[in-house]
Amino acid sequence: MATTTNAGDGMNYAPQGKPNPVVQPGEFAFAAAHLDHGHIHGQCNGLVEAGAMLKTVYDPDPQKVAAFVQKFPGTRVARSIDEILDDPEIKLVAAAAVPCDRGPLGCRVMRAGKDYFTDKTPFTEFAQLEEARRVVAATKRKYMVYFSERLHVECAMHAGDLVHGGAIGRVIQVLGLGPHRIGDKASRPAWFYEKAKYGGILCDIGSHQVEQFLFFSGATDATVTQAAVGNFANPDTPELEDFGEASLLGDNGASNYIRVDWFTPRGLGTWGDGRTIILGTKGYIEMRKYIDVARSRVGDHLFLVDDQGENHIEVAGKVGFRFFGELILDCLNRTEKAMTQAHAFKAAELCLKAQAAARRIAG
Amino acid sequence: MATTTNAGDGMNYAPQGKPNPVVQPGEFAFAAAHLDHGHIHGQCNGLVEAGAMLKTVYDPDPQKVAAFVQKFPGTRVARSIDEILDDPEIKLVAAAAVPCDRGPLGCRVMRAGKDYFTDKTPFTEFAQLEEARRVVAATKRKYMVYFSERLHVECAMHAGDLVHGGAIGRVIQVLGLGPHRIGDKASRPAWFYEKAKYGGILCDIGSHQVEQFLFFSGATDATVTQAAVGNFANPDTPELEDFGEASLLGDNGASNYIRVDWFTPRGLGTWGDGRTIILGTKGYIEMRKYIDVARSRVGDHLFLVDDQGENHIEVAGKVGFRFFGELILDCLNRTEKAMTQAHAFKAAELCLKAQAAARRIAG
Repeated sequence: MATTTNAGDGMNYAPQGKPNPVVQPGEFAFAAAHLDHGHIHGQCNGLVEAGAMLKTVYDPDPQKVAAFVQKFPGTRVARSIDEILDDPEIKLVAAAAVPCDRGPLGCRVMRAGKDYFTDKTPFTEFAQLEEARRVVAATKRKYMVYFSERLHVECAMHAGDLVHGGAIGRVIQVLGLGPHRIGDKASRPAWFYEKAKYGGILCDIGSHQVEQFLFFSGATDATVTQAAVGNFANPDTPELEDFGEASLLGDNGASNYIRVDWFTPRGLGTWGDGRTIILGTKGYIEMRKYIDVARSRVGDHLFLVDDQGENHIEVAGKVGFRFFGELILDCLNRTEKAMTQAHAFKAAELCLKAQAAARRIAG
Repeated sequence: MATTTNAGDGMNYAPQGKPNPVVQPGEFAFAAAHLDHGHIHGQCNGLVEAGAMLKTVYDPDPQKVAAFVQKFPGTRVARSIDEILDDPEIKLVAAAAVPCDRGPLGCRVMRAGKDYFTDKTPFTEFAQLEEARRVVAATKRKYMVYFSERLHVECAMHAGDLVHGGAIGRVIQVLGLGPHRIGDKASRPAWFYEKAKYGGILCDIGSHQVEQFLFFSGATDATVTQAAVGNFANPDTPELEDFGEASLLGDNGASNYIRVDWFTPRGLGTWGDGRTIILGTKGYIEMRKYIDVARSRVGDHLFLVDDQGENHIEVAGKVGFRFFGELILDCLNRTEKAMTQAHAFKAAELCLKAQAAARRIAG
């Protein structure tokens, strides 16, 4: 399960193994509910690969359910969310509802005694976050978030090991670029263009970036020092923010700049040239997460520069995604190895704060 | 002289020629004065390659003068700055004084009827800038600045042609990373560690970045929306700011984030992994100015991604540095092709504003 690395020496990176099932077949059953965002497939893949049993699926739209069952054959179809919530065997509900519905759904799941694993962004309003904090305190259930741009990206998982192992010294600054491709605009659901439903670009895809800042820098809280959003080139969908940026200052003095947008050009070989650059007092790391432009369509490139030299570490296929197995064990053992509740909620809070602080600079 | 490019098609980039002498031998004489920063060599190289005659040099330190004359043989040594200012043949004075002395020196040069070409940063205080504005207005002389990280970087010159030719649509955001190597700290002059003399990191090396933002985005003014500086790892030189960052919002809606530091690790093959990423509505450009980490120690890599595809353009040796010839002709013809006075002063003003606005986050 564990990935052991020589943190000071990227060239001799030596994974011990990829994630494997952490439980016996049938030991950990979960359900998938509300399939509004395609991330639900990644959420379920990760859990299944780690040994969880995908028992039941529910969505009000039969077409979404049919497509899901084709991808995950053998999954039982529930006629209502209550059927899932009433099933004592189901320990966790994975969901990718419309963003504005994620908070209320999670509270309902937790009140039914189950852990919740939602697609990001976890909330679109502060009140939802506060309610979830109350319900977590009352039920002792988990409100976990699929921050896929770290948890499901091997070079980001490896970067975490390097940084936390001291490979670049004290983290001074984390810079996150999260460009996304909008693609065929008509193929996206209506909620994608309604700000009250998706929450704004910093709240939505910005949440990945804020979470990474906290994780890589070790900050446990932060202040938003500037934020901006705009609609630069999508006047037909005026509530879509196609650009967003924010600066944060962590409680440990580390700073963060994040930039997100929907401007991936058609000519790029993947959906977005996601980058993270972590500057430390003893070196820096650059991740080219999904592509190495004009060089390779394989992702997971990690560049580590330290006092010893320049290293290009190709991480794809080497470290796997240990988050999912850790999450399963956290649910079974009531531990917080995969991610603490405080971390998930703080990332949620800060992306909401960045969104609230954002000045509108275009559109 | 001119560089003609097919702006929409980076792969077919076709320079017409490198810069050549723009004047006859002896037609444009200049002097070098105050050799405190090594940039004076780049300033003089550029002018000499463009046909200017380096007639005279002055510095109070005979050792600096001797080293300079070895590099530029045949240069006459002046015994005082007045000897240069009194020479009617000398049209321009190139200088790299201690930053806090650059403004006053420039005013003296202009009052003597000559144009001035200073190393960046052009000023360390607002009052110096205001005085220079007054003297420019009164004398009609030029206060030009050697923003070397654009003017003496071929991929940056080429990026300007691409962006201004429309290759990436409307510029939304410019992101500039300017890491520098501090090297052997004892080998640097005392003024390097005295804030009143170097002006602070955003004022000093940040000036390159602010200038590039104005140039690439086309903004003619901007607001500083956040700024921070710190001393993260140099307690022995407490007035050295080893980290700085700032966000600017241009008067045209374009945004800018700049990050500068003195943390280039010993293992990097050059002094700094300078990057600029320009995001547009129709594509983006990334410059890897001085190195392509773990790939190539040759600099000037330009990556252009647009709707047609991903392009890696190796610019080194292909476009030259036309700024210097344009500057000579501007001085002779009283034009503003190389750089307008308004642009140089605005970049100076904004880096002073960023410095003034900066909160201290470490040290």
